[in-house]
Amino acid sequence: MPRYALKVEYDGAPFVGWQRQVDQPSVQGSIEAALARLEPGPHNIAAAGRTDAGVHGLAQVAHCDLTKDWTPFRLSEALNYHLKPEPVAIVACARVDEDWHARFSAVERRYLFRLLMRRAPATLDKGLVWQVPHELDIAAMREGAAHLLGHHDFTTFRSSICQAQSPVKTLDALEIERVEGVGGPELQFHLRARSFLHNQVRSFVGTLERVGAGAWAPEDVKHALEARDRAACGPVCPPQGLYLAGVGYPDDPFAP
Amino acid sequence: MPRYALKVEYDGAPFVGWQRQVDQPSVQGSIEAALARLEPGPHNIAAAGRTDAGVHGLAQVAHCDLTKDWTPFRLSEALNYHLKPEPVAIVACARVDEDWHARFSAVERRYLFRLLMRRAPATLDKGLVWQVPHELDIAAMREGAAHLLGHHDFTTFRSSICQAQSPVKTLDALEIERVEGVGGPELQFHLRARSFLHNQVRSFVGTLERVGAGAWAPEDVKHALEARDRAACGPVCPPQGLYLAGVGYPDDPFAP
Repeated sequence: MPRYALKVEYDGAPFVGWQRQVDQPSVQGSIEAALARLEPGPHNIAAAGRTDAGVHGLAQVAHCDLTKDWTPFRLSEALNYHLKPEPVAIVACARVDEDWHARFSAVERRYLFRLLMRRAPATLDKGLVWQVPHELDIAAMREGAAHLLGHHDFTTFRSSICQAQSPVKTLDALEIERVEGVGGPELQFHLRARSFLHNQVRSFVGTLERVGAGAWAPEDVKHALEARDRAACGPVCPPQGLYLAGVGYPDDPFAP
Repeated sequence: MPRYALKVEYDGAPFVGWQRQVDQPSVQGSIEAALARLEPGPHNIAAAGRTDAGVHGLAQVAHCDLTKDWTPFRLSEALNYHLKPEPVAIVACARVDEDWHARFSAVERRYLFRLLMRRAPATLDKGLVWQVPHELDIAAMREGAAHLLGHHDFTTFRSSICQAQSPVKTLDALEIERVEGVGGPELQFHLRARSFLHNQVRSFVGTLERVGAGAWAPEDVKHALEARDRAACGPVCPPQGLYLAGVGYPDDPFAP
């Protein structure tokens, strides 16, 4: 059966997350329902990262198997037609080998986290940022973040329901950028790793916010990491500022 | 009575527009209802620009009169508390003289228009951009836009229900910038004038889109302007890409 890679953008707000669940709206379920309009199902698509409820996708990658030969352009057009009015769109589509796998072939995940610093409630950015009412010390946050880079046991920053076999991962990048958005000053966190643990990004950002607010010293991040104890983590921040921003493969299936 | 200037941000999607209407949700109505929670009404606030249904505010300016002396900080906090969960926020507040008027004291209005160029439907930007499925020729659009700058009779680009006394206005700026947004390439139009006619920005953008698509030559914009005939206008584009981005006063009441 021909296999297709799909690059997917979505607003996570109305969904219980990526993963299909009975009687609950999910991104996976929406795409599988659209596929069923093209070819009888059941369809069971796989994704590079199973995002939680409220988490957004800028460039999630999934794959699907179909019996018919579709040109990638026609397939993405047909899926987008049937996905409406859900806030899910196929932004790129490519034919891939039958042993290519959206999750297992991936060698890198990139996440973006948006944190809006202002008192007045977000309106146009509502549901798209995590908002804190105070300014944060970005220099202290960068100092704290530096302790997280590299190869570590990230037990402290891992959800208790995380299903990964090992808490040992390598964090390749955690950059914090200040952006003057139209709604006010915002911090954008750019993270990159081969793979992430469940709630790892939100555990990092929630902890680093405490550093930026002055409640934690930058070195406290190091101590929390070394504790290898979930109880040593700062508060896990809410999901709505989080975006799966990209997935890397040895050969980019979407390369023009 | 003490008078207060309010800088207001809002998502225009759920509203019939700025202006209060019986039994219909409006931005003005939401703010007046919040004011009535602070002091018995009726309240009747004035705004610099009465935006249409679906048009957003980044920095709309209004004023209100209250009997009590409020510190501007406490007033904005109290209004934001009562405005929830509406997507309307007071982002700045200042005490002004009793003869200061949000509309009549204004000497400049600035608008932003966001146009997303891509085939796949917008998800995260849904309701926040006008989307066209094709690339546009920005050089041709800039050439067309240049004909609109300056002092003209803008009858062609004015809604038939416009209530302005004269169609003669001076357009001080119409700049088109290409931005690589997370959702794809987008054109951002930045417009500036002392005041605008009803539907003027959307008439400009809809016409310039035709130039960018190659359906109109840049000089056709000049001919349309000179026709002083509403029928000579290009299609009026939809409202959801339009933002009232700022209002200028001889002395900025919100200056720190």
